[in-house]
Amino acid sequence: MEYSNRVKKMQSSPIRRLIPFAEQAKEEGKEVLHLNIGQPDIETPKEFFKAIEKHAGKVIPYSHSAGIKELRQAFSKYYERWHCTITPDEIIITNGGSEAIIFAMGTVADPEDEVVVIEPFYANYRSFAGMLNVNLLPISADPEAGYMVPDLSNYDSKITNKTKAIIFSNPCNPTGAVYPKEDVLRILEFAKKHDLYVIADEVYREFVFDGLKPFSIMEFTEYHDRIILVDSVSKRYSACGARVGLLASKNKTVLEQVMKMAQARLSPPTVAQMGTLGFLEMAPEYLEEVRDEYQRRRDIVYTELSKVDGLYFKEPKGAFYLAVKLPIDNSEKFVKWMLTEFDINGVTTMVAPLDGFYATPGKGEQEIRIAYVLEEKRLIQACEILRKGLEKYMKLAA
Amino acid sequence: MEYSNRVKKMQSSPIRRLIPFAEQAKEEGKEVLHLNIGQPDIETPKEFFKAIEKHAGKVIPYSHSAGIKELRQAFSKYYERWHCTITPDEIIITNGGSEAIIFAMGTVADPEDEVVVIEPFYANYRSFAGMLNVNLLPISADPEAGYMVPDLSNYDSKITNKTKAIIFSNPCNPTGAVYPKEDVLRILEFAKKHDLYVIADEVYREFVFDGLKPFSIMEFTEYHDRIILVDSVSKRYSACGARVGLLASKNKTVLEQVMKMAQARLSPPTVAQMGTLGFLEMAPEYLEEVRDEYQRRRDIVYTELSKVDGLYFKEPKGAFYLAVKLPIDNSEKFVKWMLTEFDINGVTTMVAPLDGFYATPGKGEQEIRIAYVLEEKRLIQACEILRKGLEKYMKLAA
Repeated sequence: MEYSNRVKKMQSSPIRRLIPFAEQAKEEGKEVLHLNIGQPDIETPKEFFKAIEKHAGKVIPYSHSAGIKELRQAFSKYYERWHCTITPDEIIITNGGSEAIIFAMGTVADPEDEVVVIEPFYANYRSFAGMLNVNLLPISADPEAGYMVPDLSNYDSKITNKTKAIIFSNPCNPTGAVYPKEDVLRILEFAKKHDLYVIADEVYREFVFDGLKPFSIMEFTEYHDRIILVDSVSKRYSACGARVGLLASKNKTVLEQVMKMAQARLSPPTVAQMGTLGFLEMAPEYLEEVRDEYQRRRDIVYTELSKVDGLYFKEPKGAFYLAVKLPIDNSEKFVKWMLTEFDINGVTTMVAPLDGFYATPGKGEQEIRIAYVLEEKRLIQACEILRKGLEKYMKLAA
Repeated sequence: MEYSNRVKKMQSSPIRRLIPFAEQAKEEGKEVLHLNIGQPDIETPKEFFKAIEKHAGKVIPYSHSAGIKELRQAFSKYYERWHCTITPDEIIITNGGSEAIIFAMGTVADPEDEVVVIEPFYANYRSFAGMLNVNLLPISADPEAGYMVPDLSNYDSKITNKTKAIIFSNPCNPTGAVYPKEDVLRILEFAKKHDLYVIADEVYREFVFDGLKPFSIMEFTEYHDRIILVDSVSKRYSACGARVGLLASKNKTVLEQVMKMAQARLSPPTVAQMGTLGFLEMAPEYLEEVRDEYQRRRDIVYTELSKVDGLYFKEPKGAFYLAVKLPIDNSEKFVKWMLTEFDINGVTTMVAPLDGFYATPGKGEQEIRIAYVLEEKRLIQACEILRKGLEKYMKLAA
């Protein structure tokens, strides 16, 4: 039986598609240190379960399709920390940031419409676009320039009336780049010039290092009509499995349209929403401690990789990723080789090849993403193994 | 700024769109008894929270994109009750039945393709199709024949190469009709004749009355290749807010394609999956008790409505809905009138107009859906109010 071209064109997750090789390695008795997926090891604050206990009634009902009111109020209050006025009515709670992106793309783009994306980008943007039959129009960031926002005017001629929005994450997954306010403003001006929506994914907002201050695109009030904010508690509170994210907008029409989709799927997960109330009641300092932990880890990865000659990368300033260009021809082969051919005392490290994070065919084939989601001791071990593996592989490839 | 035709064409939830009138009534001091939405009042089994306590570790991680393995194993075992062999690998856990339907439709149909639906149908099928730019091709069931599956050969000529699947729920939301095995077989034969997938939504499986035995379409092994099963714990365990459903198929290619979408959104809600393990460990007799409770409620609604002359309906045999055709011209007006103009001692009843559950324009305008989701005493009150309201409204309309 046939199935849809929609799914035929979709790729398997570039983060997950090499997992069978990892499973095989484990079956053969190897230990695999996972730096390939953004699943932090940091303990989820107990406040989550306490809040569930506090708020759960006798029935676990659907919540409002936009999410529990108290939770939207709590998020509204949270945004005040970043000098943004977002009312509870301007927030729609979603099944993680993932659903917020699906809703945003679905609201602004029809099949065969285009969404601009700064590549490398969070790989699942491509999958969500695929589900909705929306095409991606890539703007390429340069690894050797630290993956910062390039000169957008080079892309003016590519924008057509099919182009509806630009999407990006800041801090950036998969590169760890942090766009300063002036870069975000450049994106907004580009969007204004071409009448595009701006889908801003800020799930790593607080994870910025070296004294940088977190901010939100919602600060830019004069562009409010075109901004759709995507957020999530997954990374911030180490609660990826909660599946609590949100979409926020000051554009009432956008919210009305998103609500049609939100109502169709009835409700985001009620129990996890209750738990999230607990997160948002925590002191803001908690997030600073988590940030400091990630900064220490960033330092470890950066230091280790700096010992290897021939790599192209800049010190990443946020999120918990580092992307690096290797002097090899195919990073997927390297990742597989690490799993199948290399270990140090029975231990190896898994990272993610970066080609799946690009929309331009052929791009990213020399790059990898490292997610520093292990505690320091394990991370030091994982990075040493990675470095030694790299050194050996580059020698073999030379 | 413009937004997509995709969302423009989507309707607001017919179940939820009249809620502002209910809110208004409440603000004016009226009490509203809600028979409009399938949100049961039955207590969620405590096993849910006990299982969360038992299984939760220090981190709430993403689960496998197909869901926690132990949960898929537990569902596999559950299906043995209904003489169906579905292995854990043939199950993908979803964000409620909703996401399973989106995945199923997205896998089998491209934009402008068609899915056949037996109307009246669960209204959100239309919204999910809208999100995916898929069209619905309605086959109309007759209210006066108890909304059973009609002669499908009348529709042979409407099927084209754009028609990819047929979707239906059994027991049926919104009608409470229960299709016997021979009717399900007729649907399967129709699907085979036209090479369609069959998306079978069985979230009310156990709620069948008067001695009927639950079964699953998966019993029909020779049609396995074309069957996509949708299921959910929402209604069965009164846990609508858990958002735990599943898609199951014996067709490996379908599963592979669905997994691309499942991987993109990373994970169904982890905490609620843990809780669901608790449900599935409960003795099967629990569901028989719940079924008996709904049968008692069905009897109450049926008895009350039988007192009113001029209504068309048959005794529903399952789910927790009853659909009825009224001798009035517009049931939405009636529902509004109940909220704005009618009460007995300050109390009124809200039901759902049925036009939103049809794809054929104009159909269902005389029909309503009653969800018997209140405990007996409240339900008796709600039904009496509904009956008296109906009698008065029909007199006014005459």
